[in-house]
Amino acid sequence: MLLTSDARGVYPIAPTPFFDDGSLDLSSIDRLTDFYLQIGATGITVLGQLGEAPKLEYEESLNVATRMIRRADTLPVVVGVTAPGFAAMRALTREVMDRGAAGVMIAPPNTLRTDDQIVTFYRQAVEAIGADVPFVIQDYPLTFSVQMSPGVIRRVIEESPSCVMLKHEDWPGLDKISTLRAWERAGELRHVAILTGNNGLFLDYEMERGADGANTGYAFPDMLCDVVRLSTAGEREAAHDLFDAHLPLLRYEQQPGVGLAVRKYLLMRRGLLSSAAQRKPSAAMSAATRAEVEHLLGRLAEHDPRAVLAP
Amino acid sequence: MLLTSDARGVYPIAPTPFFDDGSLDLSSIDRLTDFYLQIGATGITVLGQLGEAPKLEYEESLNVATRMIRRADTLPVVVGVTAPGFAAMRALTREVMDRGAAGVMIAPPNTLRTDDQIVTFYRQAVEAIGADVPFVIQDYPLTFSVQMSPGVIRRVIEESPSCVMLKHEDWPGLDKISTLRAWERAGELRHVAILTGNNGLFLDYEMERGADGANTGYAFPDMLCDVVRLSTAGEREAAHDLFDAHLPLLRYEQQPGVGLAVRKYLLMRRGLLSSAAQRKPSAAMSAATRAEVEHLLGRLAEHDPRAVLAP
Amino acid sequence: MLLTSDARGVYPIAPTPFFDDGSLDLSSIDRLTDFYLQIGATGITVLGQLGEAPKLEYEESLNVATRMIRRADTLPVVVGVTAPGFAAMRALTREVMDRGAAGVMIAPPNTLRTDDQIVTFYRQAVEAIGADVPFVIQDYPLTFSVQMSPGVIRRVIEESPSCVMLKHEDWPGLDKISTLRAWERAGELRHVAILTGNNGLFLDYEMERGADGANTGYAFPDMLCDVVRLSTAGEREAAHDLFDAHLPLLRYEQQPGVGLAVRKYLLMRRGLLSSAAQRKPSAAMSAATRAEVEHLLGRLAEHDPRAVLAP
Amino acid sequence: MLLTSDARGVYPIAPTPFFDDGSLDLSSIDRLTDFYLQIGATGITVLGQLGEAPKLEYEESLNVATRMIRRADTLPVVVGVTAPGFAAMRALTREVMDRGAAGVMIAPPNTLRTDDQIVTFYRQAVEAIGADVPFVIQDYPLTFSVQMSPGVIRRVIEESPSCVMLKHEDWPGLDKISTLRAWERAGELRHVAILTGNNGLFLDYEMERGADGANTGYAFPDMLCDVVRLSTAGEREAAHDLFDAHLPLLRYEQQPGVGLAVRKYLLMRRGLLSSAAQRKPSAAMSAATRAEVEHLLGRLAEHDPRAVLAP
Repeated sequence: MLLTSDARGVYPIAPTPFFDDGSLDLSSIDRLTDFYLQIGATGITVLGQLGEAPKLEYEESLNVATRMIRRADTLPVVVGVTAPGFAAMRALTREVMDRGAAGVMIAPPNTLRTDDQIVTFYRQAVEAIGADVPFVIQDYPLTFSVQMSPGVIRRVIEESPSCVMLKHEDWPGLDKISTLRAWERAGELRHVAILTGNNGLFLDYEMERGADGANTGYAFPDMLCDVVRLSTAGEREAAHDLFDAHLPLLRYEQQPGVGLAVRKYLLMRRGLLSSAAQRKPSAAMSAATRAEVEHLLGRLAEHDPRAVLAP
Repeated sequence: MLLTSDARGVYPIAPTPFFDDGSLDLSSIDRLTDFYLQIGATGITVLGQLGEAPKLEYEESLNVATRMIRRADTLPVVVGVTAPGFAAMRALTREVMDRGAAGVMIAPPNTLRTDDQIVTFYRQAVEAIGADVPFVIQDYPLTFSVQMSPGVIRRVIEESPSCVMLKHEDWPGLDKISTLRAWERAGELRHVAILTGNNGLFLDYEMERGADGANTGYAFPDMLCDVVRLSTAGEREAAHDLFDAHLPLLRYEQQPGVGLAVRKYLLMRRGLLSSAAQRKPSAAMSAATRAEVEHLLGRLAEHDPRAVLAP
Repeated sequence: MLLTSDARGVYPIAPTPFFDDGSLDLSSIDRLTDFYLQIGATGITVLGQLGEAPKLEYEESLNVATRMIRRADTLPVVVGVTAPGFAAMRALTREVMDRGAAGVMIAPPNTLRTDDQIVTFYRQAVEAIGADVPFVIQDYPLTFSVQMSPGVIRRVIEESPSCVMLKHEDWPGLDKISTLRAWERAGELRHVAILTGNNGLFLDYEMERGADGANTGYAFPDMLCDVVRLSTAGEREAAHDLFDAHLPLLRYEQQPGVGLAVRKYLLMRRGLLSSAAQRKPSAAMSAATRAEVEHLLGRLAEHDPRAVLAP
Repeated sequence: MLLTSDARGVYPIAPTPFFDDGSLDLSSIDRLTDFYLQIGATGITVLGQLGEAPKLEYEESLNVATRMIRRADTLPVVVGVTAPGFAAMRALTREVMDRGAAGVMIAPPNTLRTDDQIVTFYRQAVEAIGADVPFVIQDYPLTFSVQMSPGVIRRVIEESPSCVMLKHEDWPGLDKISTLRAWERAGELRHVAILTGNNGLFLDYEMERGADGANTGYAFPDMLCDVVRLSTAGEREAAHDLFDAHLPLLRYEQQPGVGLAVRKYLLMRRGLLSSAAQRKPSAAMSAATRAEVEHLLGRLAEHDPRAVLAP
């Protein structure tokens, strides 16, 4: 089951669960995976940046990916293989594809600047992992400091038939989606899936611009599934109503650094993680932050019963 | 009337109004100023980054500042004097202080990295403008790429008695406010005003952390005034209700680049600017963006009558 | 006398001379200008980055440029007009062109990343200054953090007939010269002058790659003139011998920050500046640095009598 | 044999030798190691940035380090363990220390900005690798974009007794050495070894400022050994004479990107590597570059017989 450019719906970015002592919590992986299946996710992405991938040893990375691939069963699992060099990228790709991954996600190193540097990087990445492995471009300048113009993304898509999806999280990014889709409609560019990230901060309008869904880690991925479904079904105002109800919390979770602590705390509060622990380096939640998150949950619960959580 | 560390309330960041041909629109400055007075703003900041200050000639900068200072009458006007060098910073400071400015705002050059570099910069800035001129630190890493730890801000405050206010727009930044206020409560650091920016994206909780108000340019500064008032009066949930109603639009306007186009468009729709024109370089609003803004306005109008605007 | 793409030889980057109290030292400008004329410079660039241009007030900038333009008489003077916005860039350009400047030099703002952003910037700069004003691209990623691929430079040249020169100071940059010259030989790109900067650190081989000369501020511009002359005349080893004799000192002066202090000190030691003072912010020379510079001068004096200076 | 703060002399940065097909060339590792022993190196650093460490798979990294540790016998071998996360850093550290490494070298991730962030990073790194493992701070802002003030380095040294050496390659950096040594002389800071990098571009004066030697990869490490020896012996002018003879080539090799290609080419020309191959991403040497290197070699050969190489 390989990832194709027909991907759509919601691919949650799975966090990597740890116990308080920092060891891997595999049963929470199972619980998360079952939850994603149950809420109607159409795929899963594991070992992303916010999955704390760089904090894992190599064998741990394999364990996490494998556990999720097996448990997800019918769902395609995309594995983040971003690495400081192509040898490590290739090694991890080969292992996870052998174990049933649907494809891999590749972010650019934060030293890239010019258009040519970016295009060359993806060309060499494809040489490294093999042209038979479907891959996802991660376009996240806020985190990676690499700015890809629409024209650069187009060049990568044109060069590499194995590029099947764009994880779009540029900010601002709405017009970028429109530009890519316009080229597609004009027959100038083949279709790739566009799933959006950045914690879903603009998912409401991204869907209307031509995105195929979401690929992000907000702690209520069930809301993301609903918004994508409602938007696709043309129930525009209902989609916005639900989205807007979550926006105060979603915005809070979207903060860099502390955002991951908030996300893991929320997933623990929802019973999906047994601990909110992160490995270092990590931003801790202050008592004030925790109180604010609970306050946001309380306000959200007035609109969405899924936010009604036992204390 | 000089700015002091007792500043509080809302100091809107005033945009610089242009006609469609790029020339200065002075009557819109008057209209804006009158509006700020009417909604209960407690001060105004002019020639900020989003006031397109770098796009003005020197004489134009003086004209804009002077016009607003005179019209604002009883309101303190802070003038952004950030410049590529200290000579230009001193010249503009001297001129606007002579004309009645309450103080100046200074952002760091985006080449600063280490703590010592930042502290040295503000020391030299004070030498340049004179120790008698009250100044505001602008802490906006998203735009200026300069990261100031709480300890660095403390060092600047301790070194410079003329530092009276922090324009806080770090992201994430809530714990930074708490840290500074904790030092203050412990008697380790004198009080300075903290007014928050970043389009007000976290104003709801910033007030609860100890901010004294807002210092930003969101196109509904009247909402900012209400939220600050409600929060100060202890009407917490009412403050959040109003804030949350605006959040979808506020988030949209907070986008870098296109955000200023959205803001000026909204101010024009509210009858405050005669044109939404910017000087180059500027991000234009696409038709899709305009439609989204109107959609957001329509949805906001259900909660806040100030968003009911004639087409 | 306008700058054209036939420019060649050495255009020293003139420092801005100050007295110890920070005021402009106009008689040192005259002395420098006379010196440049005497050593065979073919032009002068004033108000560059290392000319401390950002530290001047507007009127001072005009004074410095005008003084040099008038004194230089037969030599074309290029004026750096880099500014935080196009309005200031246009204003300064108009003034200096009226006063007889041969053209202007424009560096990109350090926020530019993608190819399109760079090309758009130069297009808008040309709109601002007018298509009739010859201009120089300054390609100096080490200082400005903007990386221009050869393809981007080509696009700017193709779009703007008024682009007549590249101040090339990329590092590494030899192959970039070769690429541009190869396009030119193949008839794909019109000729522009390429004069090289970065303190001349690779002038020896840049000449052999196709550069037309030097456009930098090394304190022995007479050496630069000789190397360009020898290299052009085919006296390769003589050019290298002279260059290599200066390389230890040249490398020392090429350091960021302290380098300008070294340069001004050397020009003072040569009797061209009456003071080595800089305006703030500036890196001071430590006693150890001064001793090292004198040591380097002493060693250079064994190879080049121009380095024999009275104590 | 653990690294201590008494380290001095020359620790060449060993390149990682590959065959033309990209596989590891272990016999060249042996040849290099024997050469380092023979020329009087006092230690070796392996798996540095220019050792192409990020391009190796984990097992390969271990193989390279182990091979060199065993062959070096009496020489301390420092292993670069910089990794995107602490888990991988700890894993590699444990393995190489078990196999006889003398210590490890740690560079900061290029996202660090504030003083506190840098100090926290090294604190967490020490927690990860264990306080019993001697480590080297790599201070190389040109490559890593992290600027460490002398005060930050002092804080790391004070916090971590296992910090025994500074690989100093800031630029400019001479006054930084002087500042650290002044603190040491004043009894305010304990002694750590300072060995300098950046291809040795300022080794001549770094020795005079208080450096203990060199820790860099220039293709003539035998020259580095001689300069350190002469400088330590007080033969100042002889040290400079030898250094200056190499400076034209050394400067050429110091270029980012293409510099590593030049270095490997030179080491191949000297018979130490069987191939100049790099793994991707890599900058290739153009024909013009190769000709320039040969020209530089030819000119150097007139001063240093070690540069007389069979074609």
